[in-house]
Amino acid sequence: MQSVELILAGFGNVGKAFYELVRFRRMRILDRYGLDLFFRAVIRKKGWICSPDELGKGIQPSTRWDEMTGRECFFPPKKSGVWVECTPSDIHTGEPGRTNILRALDLGWHVVTAAKGPLVADPAALYKKAESRKRKIRISGATAAALPAIDTAIYALAGTEIQRIEGILNGTSNYILTRMHQGLIYEEALREARKKGIAEPDPSMDVDGWDTAVKLLLISNAALKQKLCLKDVFVEGIRGLSREELYRQSKKRKAVKLLGTYLAEKGRILLSVKPEALDGDHPLYGVVGAEKGITFHTDTMSRITVTGGKSDPGGAAAALLKDIINMYKHCIIT
Amino acid sequence: MQSVELILAGFGNVGKAFYELVRFRRMRILDRYGLDLFFRAVIRKKGWICSPDELGKGIQPSTRWDEMTGRECFFPPKKSGVWVECTPSDIHTGEPGRTNILRALDLGWHVVTAAKGPLVADPAALYKKAESRKRKIRISGATAAALPAIDTAIYALAGTEIQRIEGILNGTSNYILTRMHQGLIYEEALREARKKGIAEPDPSMDVDGWDTAVKLLLISNAALKQKLCLKDVFVEGIRGLSREELYRQSKKRKAVKLLGTYLAEKGRILLSVKPEALDGDHPLYGVVGAEKGITFHTDTMSRITVTGGKSDPGGAAAALLKDIINMYKHCIIT
Repeated sequence: MQSVELILAGFGNVGKAFYELVRFRRMRILDRYGLDLFFRAVIRKKGWICSPDELGKGIQPSTRWDEMTGRECFFPPKKSGVWVECTPSDIHTGEPGRTNILRALDLGWHVVTAAKGPLVADPAALYKKAESRKRKIRISGATAAALPAIDTAIYALAGTEIQRIEGILNGTSNYILTRMHQGLIYEEALREARKKGIAEPDPSMDVDGWDTAVKLLLISNAALKQKLCLKDVFVEGIRGLSREELYRQSKKRKAVKLLGTYLAEKGRILLSVKPEALDGDHPLYGVVGAEKGITFHTDTMSRITVTGGKSDPGGAAAALLKDIINMYKHCIIT
Repeated sequence: MQSVELILAGFGNVGKAFYELVRFRRMRILDRYGLDLFFRAVIRKKGWICSPDELGKGIQPSTRWDEMTGRECFFPPKKSGVWVECTPSDIHTGEPGRTNILRALDLGWHVVTAAKGPLVADPAALYKKAESRKRKIRISGATAAALPAIDTAIYALAGTEIQRIEGILNGTSNYILTRMHQGLIYEEALREARKKGIAEPDPSMDVDGWDTAVKLLLISNAALKQKLCLKDVFVEGIRGLSREELYRQSKKRKAVKLLGTYLAEKGRILLSVKPEALDGDHPLYGVVGAEKGITFHTDTMSRITVTGGKSDPGGAAAALLKDIINMYKHCIIT
């Protein structure tokens, strides 16, 4: 049995879902993986809280951290710990996640993150710090929630060359396109997606392709050890599409998807996000509604596709938990 | 850099493909993963051979192993080594793979295997030996070649509960069913599959469902830490199906697939292999021809499906290589 301490930073939808998931599942994780996950603290914008049953047993912080941007971290792990970053982060500055993660690594914590901002804004600083401190950063929670994009690339495709990646990585835009193929106009489909809680009040990140671009970037960098930036991605969204255009494609047994594509060709890397008409036999053709999917084209294993996976806060929480388990397990040798 | 010695047992289609793959890819694997894969020997039915460029540099066996069932293994690894089992094995006795693997573990080698026989005939002995010697056995090469069934279950679904597995795990029967949906009768479809090299001269293992049953069993045991046996699986093949029946299902927008199913319900586990008519929105509906696919139904991540992956000897070789890399990499922690 190994005790693993957790500090959860951010207590919004994903943070709460993660907290509940770990508490609910604690005994089963102990039983199955021999890991005793233990919340040392939950940090919110307005201060910190402790879980009533596991904390407060004589463990006291040496300093109170009033703000998430506070200057001192008061929870040095006794043996081994994971910092779980779930704050809403700014994609340009990466804050507050960036500062949190750098500080956590400095203090010897591993990091799993659902926050995309720090990974887009300043990945070099994070990974450099992680390397110098011999700590790990895992980012499944920030890429496509429960759709195992990075796991597939790293574990399932180990030893093969990934030549092309195609992904439907944004549930909102895929839902809208699916409904437009069924006859709705863009505004109707968007309204329906909002009503169902699929689209955010401001859907621009989704429909303009930026959410897809960020995920494509993070997956490509993690899977292929690249150091690409957001400005390397050509991005075009779905606002300009008409129902009539989609109808024409349906007639040809094609489906229009907002596709993120990574392509390595003749030593050049091309990254793009744009609406594309997929043939009926494309493995992502059948990915409809709010579902997501990703296809890897490889040299020695041919084409491998993963689809599905919950994409709500519960899915992101499950992805964070998975990353923590994989950090500690599946380790031999020699 | 870590040096990893390999002994390859069996030099048929899969063994040869593995040998070529590793030799071709050696520098890239060293560069990417820091692993220097090194053939210490290749063992064939009629004796052993050494790779001309990497062996014979003063490394001499102390005893000649004339037969694969020979009594002495002459290659104790200097530091760390993997035994690669690619012999054609008997599904009832598990031999010769069973003896090879037990001996390899005894001598301190890890094992990856493309041979199904030992895993079906006597899994308890193998895993007990591996545990007592603190060695690992990895079996991707024996389950669905490059389709990452076990990786997905173990890595991508860590921490979630798998409630149901559905798999199209046999390319030959899926090819035949696809062609029957397109209007061929069973015999015509089988003849075509033979001509294309998809079906074996004796296709009974495939069309009668036993190949699917074995893979389902191995995946279920590995993914869910079960100890199920082949006799726990209900098996029905595709010989009895008529083109007319498939035509009727096509009319209802359904597709008949030879489906392997694992189901945990009310404390009972049900394993079955039988033809089933899948609805148009089932994630495996679009898996046609010789392709394979597997769907995991989970509690916290919802439904996740993987499809594709080369299913020829090259695909199996790539799966063996992947297992070796994953044995040595992705390892932290404190």
